[in-house]
Amino acid sequence: MIHQPFRLHSPYNGTMQVVTLTTDFGLRDGYAGVMKGVIMSRAPGTAVVDLTHDISPGDVRTAAFVLMSSFPYFPSGTVHMAVVDPGVGSSRAAVAIKARGHYFVGPDNGVLSWAVGERPDAAVEIRNPALRLSPVSRTFHGRDIFAPAAAALAAGMPLNRLGPRRKEIKAIPFPKVKWGRGETRGEVLATDRFGNAVTNIFERGARARLGTRRLAARVGDRRMPVLEAYSSARPRSPLGIFGSSGFLEISVRDASAAEELGLAPGSRVILSGKGRP
Amino acid sequence: MIHQPFRLHSPYNGTMQVVTLTTDFGLRDGYAGVMKGVIMSRAPGTAVVDLTHDISPGDVRTAAFVLMSSFPYFPSGTVHMAVVDPGVGSSRAAVAIKARGHYFVGPDNGVLSWAVGERPDAAVEIRNPALRLSPVSRTFHGRDIFAPAAAALAAGMPLNRLGPRRKEIKAIPFPKVKWGRGETRGEVLATDRFGNAVTNIFERGARARLGTRRLAARVGDRRMPVLEAYSSARPRSPLGIFGSSGFLEISVRDASAAEELGLAPGSRVILSGKGRP
Amino acid sequence: MIHQPFRLHSPYNGTMQVVTLTTDFGLRDGYAGVMKGVIMSRAPGTAVVDLTHDISPGDVRTAAFVLMSSFPYFPSGTVHMAVVDPGVGSSRAAVAIKARGHYFVGPDNGVLSWAVGERPDAAVEIRNPALRLSPVSRTFHGRDIFAPAAAALAAGMPLNRLGPRRKEIKAIPFPKVKWGRGETRGEVLATDRFGNAVTNIFERGARARLGTRRLAARVGDRRMPVLEAYSSARPRSPLGIFGSSGFLEISVRDASAAEELGLAPGSRVILSGKGRP
Repeated sequence: MIHQPFRLHSPYNGTMQVVTLTTDFGLRDGYAGVMKGVIMSRAPGTAVVDLTHDISPGDVRTAAFVLMSSFPYFPSGTVHMAVVDPGVGSSRAAVAIKARGHYFVGPDNGVLSWAVGERPDAAVEIRNPALRLSPVSRTFHGRDIFAPAAAALAAGMPLNRLGPRRKEIKAIPFPKVKWGRGETRGEVLATDRFGNAVTNIFERGARARLGTRRLAARVGDRRMPVLEAYSSARPRSPLGIFGSSGFLEISVRDASAAEELGLAPGSRVILSGKGRP
Repeated sequence: MIHQPFRLHSPYNGTMQVVTLTTDFGLRDGYAGVMKGVIMSRAPGTAVVDLTHDISPGDVRTAAFVLMSSFPYFPSGTVHMAVVDPGVGSSRAAVAIKARGHYFVGPDNGVLSWAVGERPDAAVEIRNPALRLSPVSRTFHGRDIFAPAAAALAAGMPLNRLGPRRKEIKAIPFPKVKWGRGETRGEVLATDRFGNAVTNIFERGARARLGTRRLAARVGDRRMPVLEAYSSARPRSPLGIFGSSGFLEISVRDASAAEELGLAPGSRVILSGKGRP
Repeated sequence: MIHQPFRLHSPYNGTMQVVTLTTDFGLRDGYAGVMKGVIMSRAPGTAVVDLTHDISPGDVRTAAFVLMSSFPYFPSGTVHMAVVDPGVGSSRAAVAIKARGHYFVGPDNGVLSWAVGERPDAAVEIRNPALRLSPVSRTFHGRDIFAPAAAALAAGMPLNRLGPRRKEIKAIPFPKVKWGRGETRGEVLATDRFGNAVTNIFERGARARLGTRRLAARVGDRRMPVLEAYSSARPRSPLGIFGSSGFLEISVRDASAAEELGLAPGSRVILSGKGRP
């Protein structure tokens, strides 16, 4: 099961509808702007917010992580559109999902799966021909299919008018931690621009097993303390810290843990009590 | 003549005025943000959308391409401001143009010319002294001249109040394809972040000459099929595909065609029937 | 004393509240988007504008410069949030300041000091527990503390409800120019993406001392004219030019002065009359 550590931070329903974008389109070519143009044309007054357009081309898994970590901080009812879509033009379906008080739109390749969790409220395949630009291009369904669908939801169209119900959504397996004797074995989910490596070891679960005593992390044969602030580590020293998504992160103060420790998605990380040999 | 393949996708006039930005200012220095501040100060409630700020410094031609490919997807009446302006502070004019249901603002160096086409509805030189910040700086007319002009149009000021009518607008020649016997010779207009190389060979024109049979593309002595989806190509194999702007693009599946095939603006590309020797 | 060359360009109070963001979070990880989600959740209808997220990690001084150069171009009443915060999780305070008709929110590490100047109207430490997400993370106070505080100000909450008054704000000393006989000695404050090097030599002050005659700049043993336009220099030649913030900048036409002349923050620059030996 995927932990969903986030509560929804929406004290009231906003008066302005929000659509977020998560893609691997980059910012140099106008692709992100064009999708905003389509959304604003079809749902005037919508605020479109970039989560990121700098996912590595085709890296569905990192996009799934960014979306999962980010969506709960938006007003409920926000439409989250994620287009990391190496299968564009193939037979993969386009889907729209309601889950956790938000809407999600994207290709059915798992990019939405960590955010929507295992039991979404409803899911449809986007098939309504009125919701696509004509003609649909072979290469830019973000513009021609997903943006019009997101705009329709932002404009208040009910989910079931987008297309027929879809029972199964493709999921990327969320890597599970392994609970050993006095230690938790996990792995790196993603690294960020600072070189922090976010793992799948969730604080609440780890504390329940390992207690609230001081903890240490291990990467290969490097041991490091789990601290409360970057500034508690010595300069350029590695540390563990439970980060902003609730997961253990491996960091190096004032430097990149990804570079210094050679960490990448999939790298093994072990968490244990501090005094443990 | 420049092909204008795009229809305007504006089912209704939005209630929120939109201004788009296309520049070579980058995103690290606050320049783009400052222009938004000026626009929002003078036309409160305007939504400002980035097309791109990552045009290579001074690359007027690529900016012209991005603007041409992007503007039709915005609501009609949108103001598109493009500032790639190596001649800032020289005698080049600042212009505002109405064309194709949109407004365009920028230096008169050709950056607007592919978008506005050969017969804009109206064009003026921006001279109204009330529409510039005071003093006008020597180096940042995007902030001091173009943003106030864009804001004025967004706020509803008629074009002719921006300055005197201008009869000639500087144009960058749009490269023409050459129609040979059973083949079409074109060139690369721009490459994108994925390494796709967009050519000037427009699908409708090519099909009219070459028919709807299977086509092949040639770059140097490399031949490749023209396909309907990236995923129809073998991994890391080159292909042609008619892309999202209606033009033939040269791609390599899961890799960069620009790098693998050495493509850059101006590179020659030939399109022909598939069986052709 | 810090020169504050900028007038406020706000012809009228906008109807839409604006919040600007200046951070070192980058754009690839969703951090900037998440902060916008928090702001939009708590202050619906707010327009959030990026000044930059590409400050080098921990470079408080460059962030201070970007903020100082940019904020005056926003509507008065805008909330400017700057989070370059190497001390996150340590004892450094979180502050909110009213100055020059604008609001400023950030860590008390000097990042706000060049913008707010020496005599802000009011300053408080952000302590109101209703204005933080719960729990506050150890690593992302931009999301958990600063964004809710900025949203509260954007939504109209009076400054003094954010927390207790704070008398001293940490300031980064603004480097002073030295006035010699017929010359002014200054230094580089920041370089931009074009490689322009912005100095601390303010035009008005320099003209008052050196007169309006032609000026020359010196970097090491390289002399260069101070010109009115980049295009007045020979291609790839260095020049001085009073830039868009009112400061002398060192540039190289069609190239990067930072690279060609080896300029970085702190590099010495001398301004003198042109005929001076």
